Amino acid sequence: MTFPKISQSYTDPHRYPEGVAFLDAQYLKMRDAKVSVLDWGFLHSDATYDTVHVWDGAFFRLDLHLNRFFEGLAKLRMTIPFDRDEVTEILKNCVALSGHRKAYVEMICTRGGSPSFSRDPREATNRFMAFAVPYASVANADQMKRGLDVAISDVQRIPPKSVDPSIKNYHWLDLVRGLYDAYDKGAETALILDTNGNIAEGPGFNVFVVSEGALITPDFGVLPGITRRTVFDLCDRLDIGVSVGAVSTDALTGADEVFVTSTAGGIMPVRSVDAVQIGSGEPGPVTTQIKELYWKMHYHPEWTTPVAYPEGI
Amino acid sequence: MTFPKISQSYTDPHRYPEGVAFLDAQYLKMRDAKVSVLDWGFLHSDATYDTVHVWDGAFFRLDLHLNRFFEGLAKLRMTIPFDRDEVTEILKNCVALSGHRKAYVEMICTRGGSPSFSRDPREATNRFMAFAVPYASVANADQMKRGLDVAISDVQRIPPKSVDPSIKNYHWLDLVRGLYDAYDKGAETALILDTNGNIAEGPGFNVFVVSEGALITPDFGVLPGITRRTVFDLCDRLDIGVSVGAVSTDALTGADEVFVTSTAGGIMPVRSVDAVQIGSGEPGPVTTQIKELYWKMHYHPEWTTPVAYPEGI
Repeated sequence: MTFPKISQSYTDPHRYPEGVAFLDAQYLKMRDAKVSVLDWGFLHSDATYDTVHVWDGAFFRLDLHLNRFFEGLAKLRMTIPFDRDEVTEILKNCVALSGHRKAYVEMICTRGGSPSFSRDPREATNRFMAFAVPYASVANADQMKRGLDVAISDVQRIPPKSVDPSIKNYHWLDLVRGLYDAYDKGAETALILDTNGNIAEGPGFNVFVVSEGALITPDFGVLPGITRRTVFDLCDRLDIGVSVGAVSTDALTGADEVFVTSTAGGIMPVRSVDAVQIGSGEPGPVTTQIKELYWKMHYHPEWTTPVAYPEGI
Repeated sequence: MTFPKISQSYTDPHRYPEGVAFLDAQYLKMRDAKVSVLDWGFLHSDATYDTVHVWDGAFFRLDLHLNRFFEGLAKLRMTIPFDRDEVTEILKNCVALSGHRKAYVEMICTRGGSPSFSRDPREATNRFMAFAVPYASVANADQMKRGLDVAISDVQRIPPKSVDPSIKNYHWLDLVRGLYDAYDKGAETALILDTNGNIAEGPGFNVFVVSEGALITPDFGVLPGITRRTVFDLCDRLDIGVSVGAVSTDALTGADEVFVTSTAGGIMPVRSVDAVQIGSGEPGPVTTQIKELYWKMHYHPEWTTPVAYPEGI
C-alpha cells in the first residue's frame, strides 16, 4: 500500500483580485491573506465584519462603519487589540499600499481558535483582519443605467430572534438560496421575506420603495445598512419624506420607483420585480436625485476621510 | 509620511492541533491548511460539511456521513470533482498520514470564489477540502462521567424557512449566543428553542429525553444528526421505544433521563437543566445502556470502515 506525501508547503492554484490585506501584524498581498480552516470564523461563521468603500482616494462615512463594527464586536463578546484610531490606520494602510483609489475595504473579526481546538468560544483568541480590493458593485454598469431585474423568493431572512441583524454577519445561506431562486426565474438578484411575509432585504442590500414622492424601507429583521442610513440623511437634505415600516410585495410591485442600497454600488435602480415593470421601467426622478446627491457627497469633507498614498503608487 | 512594507509571505504565529488536511490536490500539515479570506465559504458562510469520526483506526458509519454531505452539495448546487469513492480515499489518506487512531474528520465544500471577486455564486469554483485532527468531544471525561449541566437559552434556532437544517452548515451565531447565555447562568452548554418555543438542539448536538423507559427527540428545525439516527438504530436493537416530536422545556426538566448526541462525543448524559436535577442526578440506566452499545458497535464490521496506516506511523 502506498500513501501520498505531505507537501512541505501549500501551493495555491487560485487567482485573486489585486489588493492588500492585514493579518497578524503583517501587510500581505491579497493572495497571501488566508485563515486556517480551523478558525471558528470559518467553521462556525462566528465572526462580524464591516465593509466601507473608498472613492477617489477617500473613505466614505468611515465613522459610521467603525461604530457598527465595534458595536458588533461587543455584542459577540469579542475583543481586538486595536482601538478605532488604530483600525483606521490599518484600513488606510491597506488602501494606500494597494494603490486603489476606488476600493472595497473590509474589516473582520473572527472568534479565532485555540491550539487545543477547544469548542469553548471563551478559550479562543479573537482575530482581526482587514483587506482592500478594487471597488465592487452589486449592479454592473448596464444594470445601473437601466435598473435591475429582481425576483422575490419565499425564503425567509434569518429572524432577529435567531441572529441579531444589527451584528453584521456572514450568515448568507438564506440570501444565496434567494439568489438561485431569482436566477431560476430569469431575474438578476433577489429580495427575500421577513417572518411576517413582508419584504426584508436582498443579498447585501436594503430596498426602498418610492410612492407619491415619499420613501419607505423595511425595518424589521434587516441589516441597518450604512447606505440605507445615508439615504435617510440625503432625504433630509433634499426635503424628501422617508419612513421605515412594513413593505408588502404588493407595495413593491405597485411602487412608482424602487431602488436598492449597498456600500457595494450605492443607490441602484430596480426596473422590474417578478417581471412586473416598476413605474415607467426607467430609473425614476426621485431615485436619480438621491443617487446624484449620494455621489456628490463623496467629495464633502464631513462624510469623507482622505487616504494618503505612497509616492509613485 | 512612511508606510509599512508588504511582507513577501505570511508568518503564522498561531498554534494548531496536529493533523493532516487535503486542499487543492495537496496533503498538508494542519497548520498549512488555510482558505483565502475572499472565499465565499468564509465571507458568506456559503458552505456545507460533514464530520465523521475514526475510533481505533476505523471510520464509524462513514456511509451515512457521505450521504448527507453529497445531499447537501446538491441542495446548495455545488459540485466537486470527486465521487464518493474518491472522497473516501481522501479522508482515509488524511487519517492515515495523521497517524491518529482516534480522529475527528471533516469534509467541507465551500462556494469558493472567482478571480474577479464576482458576487454571482454561479461564477465561483467550488472548493473541496478535508482534514483529520485528534478526536474531540463536546463533553470532557469528567462531564461524561457525571453528566453535563445544561441551560436553556431563549435564542431561537435558525428556522427551516430560512436555512434548510438538513444541509449541515456553519450558521452558528444562534448557538454561540446560546452558549454565552448558558455560561452566564453557570451552565456548561446550551439548548436553544425552535420557533414554537419547544427545545430544538444545542451547539453541535441533538437531545433525547427518556420518560418511562421510552425516548423522544425533537424533529422540527433540527439537524438530522448521524448519532441521533444511530440512537434510533440502537433502540431498535435494544427494543427501546423511540419517537420524534415536540419536546417542551417542562418535558425536558421533568424527564427521567436526558442525554445529548454528537459525532463529537457520542452519547453524553445530562445531569441538570437550568439547575434542575434530572432524575437521580446520575447518568441513568437507559442512557448507559445505549451508550455502551454505541461504543460496542464501533467494532462491528457493518458500521465501520477500517483505515490502513503507513508502517511506523
